[in-house]
Amino acid sequence: MDTPLTPDQNLDTFSPERRAAVLVETLPYIQRFRGSVIVVKFGGNAMVDDDLAARFAEDIVLMHSVGIRPVVVHGGAPQIGAMMDRLGLEAEFRDGLRVTDADTLDIARMVLVGKVNREIVASINVHGPLAVGLSGEDASLIQATALHPDLGFVGGVEAVNPAILDRVLAENLIPVVSTIGVDLSGQAYNINADTVAAALAGALAAERVMYLTDVDGLRSDVDDPGSRISRLDVDALEALIADGTVSGGMIPKAQACIDAVRAGVGSAHMVDGRLPHVLLLELFTNVGIGTMVLPAGVTLP
Amino acid sequence: MDTPLTPDQNLDTFSPERRAAVLVETLPYIQRFRGSVIVVKFGGNAMVDDDLAARFAEDIVLMHSVGIRPVVVHGGAPQIGAMMDRLGLEAEFRDGLRVTDADTLDIARMVLVGKVNREIVASINVHGPLAVGLSGEDASLIQATALHPDLGFVGGVEAVNPAILDRVLAENLIPVVSTIGVDLSGQAYNINADTVAAALAGALAAERVMYLTDVDGLRSDVDDPGSRISRLDVDALEALIADGTVSGGMIPKAQACIDAVRAGVGSAHMVDGRLPHVLLLELFTNVGIGTMVLPAGVTLP
Amino acid sequence: MDTPLTPDQNLDTFSPERRAAVLVETLPYIQRFRGSVIVVKFGGNAMVDDDLAARFAEDIVLMHSVGIRPVVVHGGAPQIGAMMDRLGLEAEFRDGLRVTDADTLDIARMVLVGKVNREIVASINVHGPLAVGLSGEDASLIQATALHPDLGFVGGVEAVNPAILDRVLAENLIPVVSTIGVDLSGQAYNINADTVAAALAGALAAERVMYLTDVDGLRSDVDDPGSRISRLDVDALEALIADGTVSGGMIPKAQACIDAVRAGVGSAHMVDGRLPHVLLLELFTNVGIGTMVLPAGVTLP
Amino acid sequence: MDTPLTPDQNLDTFSPERRAAVLVETLPYIQRFRGSVIVVKFGGNAMVDDDLAARFAEDIVLMHSVGIRPVVVHGGAPQIGAMMDRLGLEAEFRDGLRVTDADTLDIARMVLVGKVNREIVASINVHGPLAVGLSGEDASLIQATALHPDLGFVGGVEAVNPAILDRVLAENLIPVVSTIGVDLSGQAYNINADTVAAALAGALAAERVMYLTDVDGLRSDVDDPGSRISRLDVDALEALIADGTVSGGMIPKAQACIDAVRAGVGSAHMVDGRLPHVLLLELFTNVGIGTMVLPAGVTLP
Amino acid sequence: MDTPLTPDQNLDTFSPERRAAVLVETLPYIQRFRGSVIVVKFGGNAMVDDDLAARFAEDIVLMHSVGIRPVVVHGGAPQIGAMMDRLGLEAEFRDGLRVTDADTLDIARMVLVGKVNREIVASINVHGPLAVGLSGEDASLIQATALHPDLGFVGGVEAVNPAILDRVLAENLIPVVSTIGVDLSGQAYNINADTVAAALAGALAAERVMYLTDVDGLRSDVDDPGSRISRLDVDALEALIADGTVSGGMIPKAQACIDAVRAGVGSAHMVDGRLPHVLLLELFTNVGIGTMVLPAGVTLP
Amino acid sequence: MDTPLTPDQNLDTFSPERRAAVLVETLPYIQRFRGSVIVVKFGGNAMVDDDLAARFAEDIVLMHSVGIRPVVVHGGAPQIGAMMDRLGLEAEFRDGLRVTDADTLDIARMVLVGKVNREIVASINVHGPLAVGLSGEDASLIQATALHPDLGFVGGVEAVNPAILDRVLAENLIPVVSTIGVDLSGQAYNINADTVAAALAGALAAERVMYLTDVDGLRSDVDDPGSRISRLDVDALEALIADGTVSGGMIPKAQACIDAVRAGVGSAHMVDGRLPHVLLLELFTNVGIGTMVLPAGVTLP
Repeated sequence: MDTPLTPDQNLDTFSPERRAAVLVETLPYIQRFRGSVIVVKFGGNAMVDDDLAARFAEDIVLMHSVGIRPVVVHGGAPQIGAMMDRLGLEAEFRDGLRVTDADTLDIARMVLVGKVNREIVASINVHGPLAVGLSGEDASLIQATALHPDLGFVGGVEAVNPAILDRVLAENLIPVVSTIGVDLSGQAYNINADTVAAALAGALAAERVMYLTDVDGLRSDVDDPGSRISRLDVDALEALIADGTVSGGMIPKAQACIDAVRAGVGSAHMVDGRLPHVLLLELFTNVGIGTMVLPAGVTLP
Repeated sequence: MDTPLTPDQNLDTFSPERRAAVLVETLPYIQRFRGSVIVVKFGGNAMVDDDLAARFAEDIVLMHSVGIRPVVVHGGAPQIGAMMDRLGLEAEFRDGLRVTDADTLDIARMVLVGKVNREIVASINVHGPLAVGLSGEDASLIQATALHPDLGFVGGVEAVNPAILDRVLAENLIPVVSTIGVDLSGQAYNINADTVAAALAGALAAERVMYLTDVDGLRSDVDDPGSRISRLDVDALEALIADGTVSGGMIPKAQACIDAVRAGVGSAHMVDGRLPHVLLLELFTNVGIGTMVLPAGVTLP
Repeated sequence: MDTPLTPDQNLDTFSPERRAAVLVETLPYIQRFRGSVIVVKFGGNAMVDDDLAARFAEDIVLMHSVGIRPVVVHGGAPQIGAMMDRLGLEAEFRDGLRVTDADTLDIARMVLVGKVNREIVASINVHGPLAVGLSGEDASLIQATALHPDLGFVGGVEAVNPAILDRVLAENLIPVVSTIGVDLSGQAYNINADTVAAALAGALAAERVMYLTDVDGLRSDVDDPGSRISRLDVDALEALIADGTVSGGMIPKAQACIDAVRAGVGSAHMVDGRLPHVLLLELFTNVGIGTMVLPAGVTLP
Repeated sequence: MDTPLTPDQNLDTFSPERRAAVLVETLPYIQRFRGSVIVVKFGGNAMVDDDLAARFAEDIVLMHSVGIRPVVVHGGAPQIGAMMDRLGLEAEFRDGLRVTDADTLDIARMVLVGKVNREIVASINVHGPLAVGLSGEDASLIQATALHPDLGFVGGVEAVNPAILDRVLAENLIPVVSTIGVDLSGQAYNINADTVAAALAGALAAERVMYLTDVDGLRSDVDDPGSRISRLDVDALEALIADGTVSGGMIPKAQACIDAVRAGVGSAHMVDGRLPHVLLLELFTNVGIGTMVLPAGVTLP
Repeated sequence: MDTPLTPDQNLDTFSPERRAAVLVETLPYIQRFRGSVIVVKFGGNAMVDDDLAARFAEDIVLMHSVGIRPVVVHGGAPQIGAMMDRLGLEAEFRDGLRVTDADTLDIARMVLVGKVNREIVASINVHGPLAVGLSGEDASLIQATALHPDLGFVGGVEAVNPAILDRVLAENLIPVVSTIGVDLSGQAYNINADTVAAALAGALAAERVMYLTDVDGLRSDVDDPGSRISRLDVDALEALIADGTVSGGMIPKAQACIDAVRAGVGSAHMVDGRLPHVLLLELFTNVGIGTMVLPAGVTLP
Repeated sequence: MDTPLTPDQNLDTFSPERRAAVLVETLPYIQRFRGSVIVVKFGGNAMVDDDLAARFAEDIVLMHSVGIRPVVVHGGAPQIGAMMDRLGLEAEFRDGLRVTDADTLDIARMVLVGKVNREIVASINVHGPLAVGLSGEDASLIQATALHPDLGFVGGVEAVNPAILDRVLAENLIPVVSTIGVDLSGQAYNINADTVAAALAGALAAERVMYLTDVDGLRSDVDDPGSRISRLDVDALEALIADGTVSGGMIPKAQACIDAVRAGVGSAHMVDGRLPHVLLLELFTNVGIGTMVLPAGVTLP
């Protein structure tokens, strides 16, 4: 599973018996996840490749149609960057971190809520009136605070009020959440989507949180495709961060997995969003995909 | 589809992509039937072949797990006959029809409710606490009357009180119904299972009623396997009975299809119970299977 | 109360005032038991005497009509034996215990679920659509394990999943339970009905469990009809078993009473099923009947 | 049943079998009335004789405990008269009708709501927290208008808003209603209790309305105790009023029966409140009591 | 706020903007109390001055219309006294305390339930079908015991069963409670209304209990109108009772405030019932009114 | 009311009695609208003036807090134009109508959903977690079709599926709706907000729809401020359009009023959004504001 899967040339020649066999093999997985909340962080290439995005929508709708309750969380750095460019604005950095002033926040919010979120909702609703877009501001879903005074309106998650999500899920709808939060004064903040996914999964006591990334999982040797770590517990993952095995851009994602599991989520997964239907493969087959982070001390057979 | 399908030798070599593709192709079918009541008359070889019976149970559980609400109705003539033989009893006939005296009724009920029903419930419950056995006597589900005074305790359906089925379905359970009815005095009757399936489907406003038989469907020329009729409406089917095209043992089944559709069921189906997973193939693929009976004047593209 | 009561010759001469007086005297008993779950183990002569069985059905329906929620549990050893005889089968014994092989289990299940249970349901439903037959296999009500490898499919109660009973009771119906259990692999077992009654009563937090027997209660001197013990607590009853006062066939019944009360049931009763309307007499009058087993240390005035 | 019943000397000698027999004979009556609303107009001697009042309370509680939903309606002319006397007030009449001025209304309301209603509630609640006192003013239950300008605050029923009764009944409580109504301006009126009972029974679609009176029913010959009319329909009753057979004080009561039945109540009954437990005798035995008024054209076997 | 407010001469000249401004200023108060239970003890001059009583009714209805759930509790000593006088009865005293014999109790109950309660209900229901009168006897709301054998039927609160209040509140109605209690034998007692208000507020976990009195609040110097104590906690209030600052008729009211707050009520208030619309002023404006009693150690900014 | 109101200088000097008087005068209006759905089209100067926008949010929250269920609908032409300018894009016109190509639609959606909607939600949520932003795409709220092929993605309302609004209202939240619709293929369209407000009000069976405009209402003589029409029915309004009295930019708004009322809305209102708190003045006072459009033939006193 270390190289991207190639499309299958002759799906049309599938025999009916094979189709039935696949469905029957799926049965135990469907039964296992029925009724579970699964939070999916949508991002990376999957979000900017139209075909992968359509596959993603199919997966979410299929999860929903077999009784899973998916919650989609998304960011949109590339799309925000593109709009900044188009408006001729330059990102300002301080100590290597991007500063979000009022105008930048306004644009980020507009792009996230008004464009990226809408496109995800639309791609799901092609299959029926299923998705509802939400922002962290709606019904005070995500309460934020400034992460650092120098960074402007970049926020951290102060608290989650999942009531509106519970209601939307109870109505058998699929919430799609933009990661804008709000403080008590009504000021909005842009928040890292990995962090928000972990916080929402914890607040919803989700069975799983799944991060779509552009890598095939964590590796014990970053240069060796064969060194992917299939499963580890949060303690082991923290040790890998401490000893530098996990480094660079994977650190925030790994930390979000740790936070989610420590907050009570059943397991956290980093999976390769470049694989078409990666969610179905992970949830409904025994194909080993990505890296699974388990609670401390938990091992699976 | 006119010859029984052969098992597929190399399911294990299915690629993950193919599995995902099958699931995704199934999505529109799942969405279409979600929440629908589908009454399935279980019978024929499928009921006496252990392997086919296990496949049937898998199909019912899979239907249930994707949100369909299946209701199983069964008879059990072969099993009743076997017990009669074992007890050294001979069937009595009058004008070519089997007479059911009190002792025969007692044995029929015992075999249907105490053996056949139990085995179906058990085969489903291997997958979880899902099935509940019911007899038409429970909570006065099926009110019967004597079909003919000479035939003893052979009954017809006088009325259906589907309240107990509604309750069991509302609890997300799978009812398995033995076709014993009861009259107002408390006297039990054995009733033809095809008739009961049609009556229950009508009373439940079912989306479909499906009859598992030992043939591949109705044929316009009984000797020509290539003459299977895929689809027809009730008027056409009545004409086929009138002109003798449908004859012999297929008449009661065809009549039950007509009764069900006239009672408001969306469509009635005669499918080949000798095909493993025939329910999945019919419901979740576009493979043309058996014969579909539609309301008068309805045609499908 | 030590001899069976004789029928009353002149019920018809009851004056209206007397009738009203009886009803009014019943009021405190009705109020006391309103809403309570009462598990009744039906067995002994009452089950094989048609007249007593009809009286039993009346009692159950009357209990139900004044707001009690009765649950009927039954075995059927005599009826199973009769069918074994009719089929020319001989019971096999090992170390004095009857062995239940697959064929015997099949017959036992058929008789219990398909005949005895049906007859009880029918006798109740003469009064309205009230009773629903259940087997311990339905919705995994009774999880069983083999009692002893040498005995074949004779089971003990491993666990009770009372969800289906709760649902049936919530619908204001009367469950009638056959004592077939099932293990996780789907294998059925025949289980002692006294044991099942105690386990169900415990799982339902029943107010009472009542055993219909062919004796008038426990006696301190088995040969002295005047030595019936009206009331004792579980500790006292265990002492009576230990010192041999309770012996032979009464031991399992006494043990079931102890188990039920230790599992939280308000009280357990052994009453004389040969008395017509013994349930009404015990529940709705101050006539002292049978033996009442109370929690340790509890005494009544 | 034409002479008042005498108390039974030896109730204590009832055998247990007799008691059981009475209960079983009651079963069909209990099943018939289960869930029905029965409005009872309490009045006459029964209301001023402490022992009869206690019996009445027992009857109401017993009705309630077997699933009937009783509604008690009461007036209180004797008690109002006694308080008027005590206060040294004299009733004023105009054209033979008592005039109700503001002070009289105040006293009537005080006595009805604050004394008579309270005593009925208290006598029922001796058996448990069951009764709730209501006045027609509460939540605008009874909307009244002046019957005649000369009579002051004597009202007729303009409309009934049974919402508060529905709520109280839904909570399984027993409403006890004082017959004070209110007009849109908030002015209170004293209303005839027979009229109110008919109006409430109609608005509640009651199964029955029962009037406790001081006679044993309507007679075809007022002087012949043997001429009691057991049953008649509203047309026949209107004819009896027209031809003078029903006369004097019985006219308003007969008219209330007619109004109730014409408003959809199943039947209206005039019964002898001097008989202890007359409600139980009428509802739960086949003793012929009082006079039953049926819808036009309805006859019973 | 130390002198009664004078009516405003030119309300009609209010500009629309001023009206809007008042409403907007009220918003935070409405939001704060929305959904809260507030128990109001109605008494003093406000109860016997028709105009103040009408203002009180308006306040209660306005509280209700903005989502507060008010519960009104009332006594009626002056009205009882007036009826005693009218009947020529003299109050009997023992050791300075009024003795309530059976006749006095009867009259007290009649006046409270049949007159005072009715008048409050009527004044509220002028605005719609909102109020329902209750006595502590209804559905066993207030269980009482004799306060002292010498005092006859003067009761204390033994227990509160708030079920009927919960139901009435759940139906969005306004309960008006007369302070008659009842013991287990059904004997009624007259109970001090301040005490009942505190007990009900505690049992309902009310946000507030508010006492309408004829003074402007507690004073640190009873003769100095400027010494009103705006706020204090229960410990401070107990100290004021102990050192004699609170004395005479204010002691029972102060004690009721302490009891309510110790029973979990958010705060207790003594306000001047002689002020028109005093409830609105206290709840919806920042005008400082009366004395607020807070839980031990709680202070407000 | 023909000239804009001037702010009140001395609100702070309001006496408490005056405040109470205003609240009490508001009571009948609160009672009248309690529970009603009122759709408010937010637009014009009120949407781009920060202070007016804050007043608008206060009005919406106050409406909500007294039990009204407001639904806010908004457009945002000026904000879309500003973003177009900022991006250096020029609007294209065909036959005088603005053409919406894919890029323009993308920007319109981004601005409406991601900026304007967010700002309204934020301004309301300053008062608590009350508002939830929705787009017509969410759960297929607004089904659209192209208005004219030459205009690109400018849509008309094809159908409304108010389920998501019903849910949000049932949860006591305030929906804020952006007027983007979607066709069955998933293509989004920008729709005129006046039209959407009318369609939503009709689908919700709203009591009122209120349009905030920049004029003080319809005038019979557009140049005469004194010729404002306070009230007229839909037939009269259609006549005014036909005879040219209503002309220019007021026609679409007038047509929306007609459509809403013809679809079953109680009344439609054009009010001057430049007045602070115009919603409160219209709903809660008897100040005559704007123009009210009533169903055909309805007149008010």
